Amino acid sequence: MAEPIFRRLCIIGIGLIGSSVARVAKARGDIADVVVATDANAEHLERARELGFADVVEADTGAAVEACDAVMLSVPVGAIGAVMQRIAPHLAPGCIVTDTGSTKGSVIRDILPHLPAGVHLVPGHPMAGTEFSGPDAGFAELFQGRFCILTPPEGTDPATVKKVAEIWRRAGSTVEFMDAATHDKVVAIVSHLPHLIAFTICSTADDLAQETREAVLKYAASGFRDFTRIAASDVDMWRDVFLNNREAVLEMLARFTEDSQAFGRAIRWGQREYIEDRIRRGRKIRRGLIERKQA
Amino acid sequence: MAEPIFRRLCIIGIGLIGSSVARVAKARGDIADVVVATDANAEHLERARELGFADVVEADTGAAVEACDAVMLSVPVGAIGAVMQRIAPHLAPGCIVTDTGSTKGSVIRDILPHLPAGVHLVPGHPMAGTEFSGPDAGFAELFQGRFCILTPPEGTDPATVKKVAEIWRRAGSTVEFMDAATHDKVVAIVSHLPHLIAFTICSTADDLAQETREAVLKYAASGFRDFTRIAASDVDMWRDVFLNNREAVLEMLARFTEDSQAFGRAIRWGQREYIEDRIRRGRKIRRGLIERKQA
Repeated sequence: MAEPIFRRLCIIGIGLIGSSVARVAKARGDIADVVVATDANAEHLERARELGFADVVEADTGAAVEACDAVMLSVPVGAIGAVMQRIAPHLAPGCIVTDTGSTKGSVIRDILPHLPAGVHLVPGHPMAGTEFSGPDAGFAELFQGRFCILTPPEGTDPATVKKVAEIWRRAGSTVEFMDAATHDKVVAIVSHLPHLIAFTICSTADDLAQETREAVLKYAASGFRDFTRIAASDVDMWRDVFLNNREAVLEMLARFTEDSQAFGRAIRWGQREYIEDRIRRGRKIRRGLIERKQA
Repeated sequence: MAEPIFRRLCIIGIGLIGSSVARVAKARGDIADVVVATDANAEHLERARELGFADVVEADTGAAVEACDAVMLSVPVGAIGAVMQRIAPHLAPGCIVTDTGSTKGSVIRDILPHLPAGVHLVPGHPMAGTEFSGPDAGFAELFQGRFCILTPPEGTDPATVKKVAEIWRRAGSTVEFMDAATHDKVVAIVSHLPHLIAFTICSTADDLAQETREAVLKYAASGFRDFTRIAASDVDMWRDVFLNNREAVLEMLARFTEDSQAFGRAIRWGQREYIEDRIRRGRKIRRGLIERKQA
């Protein structure tokens, strides 16, 4: 077994992602000697004790991070600033703070003002998940074969970046580096906008007249069904994602709306070639994904 | 084996759907004594001969339908009027004409003017498909466990409706009846709008600056990947669907656009409760689908 990366790793927030990190750390043994788990939700703490995926389960957030050389924030991104403020006085000098949030600009914006001198920040985003949430939903293999994007601000100590990257490599992921602004644009189009669309189309269907709505549920073809798979997601997490990646999501929504209105106009005016071109471009992107083995 | 429903069934258009009907008819033997296949595409005819899923492969559409007691039009819905005009003089008295198009109002509109006296029309829509197309893509099990919607105009002879319904029941589908206008609204929201959105989001991504576009392909998370699965579809078929279900698609696009703009506005103004409500409604619809075993 390789030397553990950290002596004592505290995971704050033990939902799907946080509890999966705890599980893979426990299973491998070479991520941290000791894994501490804490959560604002008392039921989560109780489940953590029952499921046994952490060495220490601690209700007090401040006490949980004490003497840790690494702290991973795995809470909805809207809560990260408050959690950081709460733990700041308890962080040991030299401690590395990282996170698993789906937005990176807002995380850096919310953490930096509270970051004590001598404490390092390496923001991260494991691109993994399921449609389930909570401590029972996690599993040690969640990150295998997935990407994890790290967005260390300029000037971050390379040694700390290397350690955080190593967590994800040992969990089975490929680690990539990007600046926070690029990250936020990319996830806005590959993930946040598709979720916004999926949530919306469900509401649109739900608002239809009773008779049509019943038929919609009955005949949901694969198209609509794929959308609703996306839509079965954690409320707090997704509310915070939209609110904390606002500019990029609104920009992508605006671009998408222009394009869908142009598509609608082509349908209204019978512009066959425009419609065919849009369909062909969809197929081209699809082929691109297959070639990259992402499909 | 049950008595075959028809003596001689001609399938016009042997792509994914048409060739799958031929295959299940061949495999069961109780749908028609003789299956005739025809197609405007010479390569499709050649493949039909090689694959052997029809008893007779006939290049001339008029000759193909002669002496048939049933004809199934399985061509893109935009071609149905022209095909009907071409075959009308060759149809035997008492023949039943059916189709497999994804739009039903336009099919009735385009067929009725050419329908000879004594020939029956029973429009149909098997709600089955894959992301592949062409005679090689078909398979006998395609319709198993799926719905097939029939939209016979008022006054249609119930005996002919029963025979067409029996094709789909023997192919493994559950048959439902609906008027054409309701059908077109339902498929607009469960299938046509999701495809329009999927084609559009691929174009939107393709229009991004080179650097972001490359990253999009690399990091396509499950959200975007599900969309591109929908988007890998036949160009002619989907162009015709949009053009021939224009009113319903534009109505559903307008409703969806209003709803997505309202969602965007809530993000801009930080309306947490509005966003949470949208996410919850998505989850509710998702649960509805699971309860109906459609998910």
